[in-house]
Amino acid sequence: MFLRVHVALAPGELPGEGLPPQNVVVIDVFRAATTMAAALSHGCEMVIPVLTPEEARERARRFSEGQVLLGGERAGEPIPGFDLGNSPLEYTAERIAGKVVILTTTNGTRALLAAAAAGATAIAVGALVNVKAIAHWVEAQGRDLMLLCAGEGGSVSLEDTVCAGLIVDRLATGGAPLDLSDAAGVSRCVARDYRDRLGDLRTDSRWARHLTRAGREADLAACLSLDVCPLVPLLRGGAVSAA
Amino acid sequence: MFLRVHVALAPGELPGEGLPPQNVVVIDVFRAATTMAAALSHGCEMVIPVLTPEEARERARRFSEGQVLLGGERAGEPIPGFDLGNSPLEYTAERIAGKVVILTTTNGTRALLAAAAAGATAIAVGALVNVKAIAHWVEAQGRDLMLLCAGEGGSVSLEDTVCAGLIVDRLATGGAPLDLSDAAGVSRCVARDYRDRLGDLRTDSRWARHLTRAGREADLAACLSLDVCPLVPLLRGGAVSAA
Repeated sequence: MFLRVHVALAPGELPGEGLPPQNVVVIDVFRAATTMAAALSHGCEMVIPVLTPEEARERARRFSEGQVLLGGERAGEPIPGFDLGNSPLEYTAERIAGKVVILTTTNGTRALLAAAAAGATAIAVGALVNVKAIAHWVEAQGRDLMLLCAGEGGSVSLEDTVCAGLIVDRLATGGAPLDLSDAAGVSRCVARDYRDRLGDLRTDSRWARHLTRAGREADLAACLSLDVCPLVPLLRGGAVSAA
Repeated sequence: MFLRVHVALAPGELPGEGLPPQNVVVIDVFRAATTMAAALSHGCEMVIPVLTPEEARERARRFSEGQVLLGGERAGEPIPGFDLGNSPLEYTAERIAGKVVILTTTNGTRALLAAAAAGATAIAVGALVNVKAIAHWVEAQGRDLMLLCAGEGGSVSLEDTVCAGLIVDRLATGGAPLDLSDAAGVSRCVARDYRDRLGDLRTDSRWARHLTRAGREADLAACLSLDVCPLVPLLRGGAVSAA
């Protein structure tokens, strides 16, 4: 019984609906997936992904004041009037413990909502910080898998490809018999090249270079920290919480 | 002045129209691009790519009998009533010298026609057999470039990714200042891994495994022969001929 593993290197590959039965891990290393993992690690009750800032404000009205915070970015910058940006470093226990965060980002939250609309069986959120945890979850689930790279503006991003490939590589070396798509093989190949030099993603990834120019080197360091988070954030009923 | 180089790892990334000014190299290693290069090497006057077998038959009627041959495949197999399949080994001088070939294949000819519809400035056909020739052509053109992988059924194919990456790597080591997209970096990374073991594509590529099961090992050997063809097939006015 082979576990089929595919990597969608860009989100456009996902069908609008009617996805064959499989689990989906949405990957967005810089920065939404890392931010969600950080938020849940620091006691955030749940993260609700939404498409637009307007929708975020509308959803916030359903909660009592003090219970909810607005977070996210557009073009990498904080959204005017929001409580939090998209830096994992902002999501400290002091700010978000016991709170609900409504999050809207350009690529990550969009890919999460697309995976839900497509009909994925279960949806997890993956980044470099929780590669090992995601691999364990996938093995425990024993279900066909799509690793969906959120990418950048619809295009392939190097860091998400590397992250997907590290998950594939961990599954492959874990001993479970896998049926890898060519894209999964491509990702694994790239991951093995970058595995021992993840810091090079700071210069080799286009979006990392943008974030560096925007003064967000500390965010990059947080996002490039491999396996520091044991959580598997899961999207269930429209909200992301720890498994 | 940087030359921008992007790799579209799957053809769905190409816009239906309105592509910004750039040249496109359509890559389909197994087998249409290799077959076109073989046909032109052996004296074929031109290859006319069309979408469907019906269109191929209709176009053939515009030529005098004996001047034109029908070629192509569906699901990798020859099309009933056609003169030629999609094996580069069939396109010998005896069969096709001085002739026009009307070709319809599942991925390669489709990607070529999509590049033309999108408005590419110039369109070349690349495979492993003519990596060096394509790189020289790109350098001489001095224009922004998209390497468009035909892929397999809309998905990423390992062999086309490797071929695109070999072209990127040759351009990068050629000294011209390049601005590589993340996808171009991904391809280059995979190409450097496979460069000295192209034969492993026989087992690592899904479509290669299919062709092997179909008894087409000799085709694979022909398609995996690096730089044996000095030609750059160009699509101009609806027909592919040597530059």
